[in-house]
Order: sequence, then structure tokens, then C-alpha cells
Amino acid sequence: MNVLLVLAHPERHSLNGTLVDIATRELTSLGHDVQLSDLYRMDWKATVDQADFPHGATDPLNVAAASARAYETGQLTDDVKAEQEKLRWADTVIFQFPLWWFSAPAILKGWIERVFSAGFAYGTGRSYGDGCMKGKRAMLSVTIGGTEHDYSARGICGPIEDLLFPLTHGTLFYTGFATLPSFLVYSADRLEERGEGFSELVDRYRERLATLETTAPIPFRSAASGDYDLRTRELRPAWRLRTRTASGCI
Amino acid sequence: MNVLLVLAHPERHSLNGTLVDIATRELTSLGHDVQLSDLYRMDWKATVDQADFPHGATDPLNVAAASARAYETGQLTDDVKAEQEKLRWADTVIFQFPLWWFSAPAILKGWIERVFSAGFAYGTGRSYGDGCMKGKRAMLSVTIGGTEHDYSARGICGPIEDLLFPLTHGTLFYTGFATLPSFLVYSADRLEERGEGFSELVDRYRERLATLETTAPIPFRSAASGDYDLRTRELRPAWRLRTRTASGCI
Repeated sequence: MNVLLVLAHPERHSLNGTLVDIATRELTSLGHDVQLSDLYRMDWKATVDQADFPHGATDPLNVAAASARAYETGQLTDDVKAEQEKLRWADTVIFQFPLWWFSAPAILKGWIERVFSAGFAYGTGRSYGDGCMKGKRAMLSVTIGGTEHDYSARGICGPIEDLLFPLTHGTLFYTGFATLPSFLVYSADRLEERGEGFSELVDRYRERLATLETTAPIPFRSAASGDYDLRTRELRPAWRLRTRTASGCI
Repeated sequence: MNVLLVLAHPERHSLNGTLVDIATRELTSLGHDVQLSDLYRMDWKATVDQADFPHGATDPLNVAAASARAYETGQLTDDVKAEQEKLRWADTVIFQFPLWWFSAPAILKGWIERVFSAGFAYGTGRSYGDGCMKGKRAMLSVTIGGTEHDYSARGICGPIEDLLFPLTHGTLFYTGFATLPSFLVYSADRLEERGEGFSELVDRYRERLATLETTAPIPFRSAASGDYDLRTRELRPAWRLRTRTASGCI
């Protein structure tokens, strides 16, 4: 398997950094190939704006239309192209990040906004289980300051599955990934110290890494299931991909 | 009332920009004072990192600990201090943004990560209805490409209230704001054209703006309600605010 690790933490010597090291070691020893996108070390540009379309944005700027045009003509910026190439290469993607304000750090959100361009990840007429990332797997690996109890079904923070739904369903499943159940590390501030519970954590993560190919994805219902009466697709956006392929993906 | 508008859209001549203009005009005519943080025009730095703590981060960097120390000693960066000053001034905050990948744009997420520093917005022992923003109101004003149907209770995208919960509950209510029901604009790409439905939209928004002070907040249950058995508070973080005040807020 080819595995892409995407790390979003400002401190390489953190629990998040350690989990990436564990994943790299474990996956390599299992015979997989690993690439790492360490967003902070790459000084990743987190905001999508006019500068993302150096060969001409729409005026006024419509991000979807501009990114569709730039993608089709090979004129996205080099940093975005490099990440798209890694995604094409990958069979599985693991996102490693701390839960900040109940979602992903801004730098990772900005990676999604820029790399998941129109034509590459959306706007092709395929979505929710049938997007262009179909055949790939993805997993969130998330460190959380609070306790499992407070993120349980009736915990004060709300159920963690619901908090992560915009990522697991709205981002990953939408674009075609089979989303695996998230790997969750609670009370994470204590584990930074590598004290009590740390070796159990390592064992638990290694087990998940060893079963990446066989773990059943979250059973989200696909757009093709017939369970939904879709309306959004009936809207005609002001922009359209010009390229036509049988699959819709280019 | 003092109202802070926070705008997160790369194109000022967009529906989001127009909604901010409508809000400014309407609120001013009602006798309120308005300030605008136009994040893209401010070239807002979206990622929290070592550079946020020029007078010394912790080593290794622990964002919560470093931001607590910098906040207490008045050594946060000037851009962050200016936004905190606006929040102190504001009675009500309106966040205007497009729903991108089922959450806020990265630039707004990064505004929250940097401005809502430890000591200012969390880490004081007060949260969920009792945070330091208590007494202030907040509202999300969100443009959404898809249809209301697809964001309804059983729509394919998931209920919009659930998708926005990390912001309405986990960010705003957590820090003490009374969060008003979100103002939602569906099928937004069509409205960019200011065609059909646009004047109804303006009327609907003006009505919400006129009733900001009287609209009932979302009835989230507070930490003090006794409805929750809290565990996260029992964790002792590696860092602590040194300042002690009666309220916990400084």
C-alpha cells in the first residue's frame, strides 16, 4: 500500500509528531510505502485566495470556477499540484491532528480548501461514496484534550462522531474515500509526557495501522443508495468543467 | 449596541460582502455602532505557530501554555490584541462566511485559534454558558451552495445545525456567548447574481438584524445546569494561568 500521512501540528516534538513517527515505522515494517506532508514544516499556505490562480482568476473571484479552470489547464500552484500528486499516489491517507475548537486546525482546513480543487475532488457530478477518490481509504487520527466521557453520546462536548462528521462524511466520504473509524486519543495532554497509558496507546495504534486494509469503513449511505432524494444536483452552477470523461474524473 | 462583523470571504464583491454591507447599513440606521474585521483584506495570518509568541514560546511548543503566558503578560502579537479589543468592545458578533467543506473557511478558523487565546477565551475554569464572553451574543450568517432540503434532518449533507455545532456550541457557547440561531442562505450561488429571491433574502436578513437583541438564543444546556457529569475539568493540564481573579476572567 501507498500511505500518505498528513500532519497538522506546530510542534514536531509533540504527541502528534510521535504518532506520525509510530505510523511511519509500523507501516514501513509492514512493507508499505509512506509519504509525509508535514504542513507546518512545509509552511503550508492556509488560505485560498486570488494568488492561488496566478494565471487568471475569475473577476469577481469565484473560488470554485477559478479552481476548476486552473485545474483543467494545469495552472494550479506548484504546492497544490504536489499534494494532488501525493493523493493520486496514495491508497490510504491518514490525517494526524489535534482537535482544536472541536475541528481540524486551520492549516489542515486550508490544505483541504486548496488541494481539493474543483475537478479534482468535487464539481464532477460524483459525490458521497462515488467521488473521484473512490477506491482509496482515509482515517482521522485525532488527539483530544478532554475525556472520552465528555465526548460520548450525552457528554457536554457532544458526540465525537458528530463533531468530526464534516470531515469524515462531508469531506472524505463526499470525495469518494472509504472513511475508516477515527483513531482517537483522549486526555491527550497527559500523554505528551509519555507517562501512564502511553505504551497501551502505542499498542492500540499499531493494531489499527496493521488492519488499515481490512477495517470496515464507517457505513455512510451513498448518493447512489437511493436513500436520499437529492436536490442540490439540480442546481446549475455558474461554472462548469469543460473536460468531459466517461467517469467525470480527470 | 456595539456590533462586530467578522467577514471571511476572498472576494469583497460577493454575496458575503453584500451581506456585510447590508448589516452595516441596517445596524447603523438602527443606532448601533459597527466595526468590521474583513479577514482577507487584513491579510489575516491563519495559522497559530511559534511566531505568535515572539517573547518566548514554551519548548517544546504547547500552544495553550504559550498563549496563556503571552496573554497574561500582554505579549500576544498586535494583530491578535487588536481583535481581542474589538471583542471586548462588542455586545454582539456576527460571523459572515461561506460554508466550505461543511465548516468555516480556514482563515476564520485561524482567527478563532489565534484570538481565542488561553486566559481570554478558555482555560479559566469557566465554560459552556459561563465563559468569559458571557453577556455577549453571537450569530453565524452562512451562505451555502446546496439546497435547504439536502441540509435538512435526513438530507444527504446532514442537518445544518449539526454541521455548525462545533462553532455554535463548541466555540461560541463554550466561551460564554449566547448563540443565536444561524442566518442561513441556501442555493447561494444563484443569489450571487442578485436575481430571483434576492430582495426576499434582504428582507429576511434585515428582520434578523432588527431583532438581534430580542431573538432567543439556541437553548444549549450550560455546564452549570447539572445536566452533565463533567470529567474533563478533573484533568490537570500541564499549564495554568497564574493570574487569579474572582471571575476567573482577566
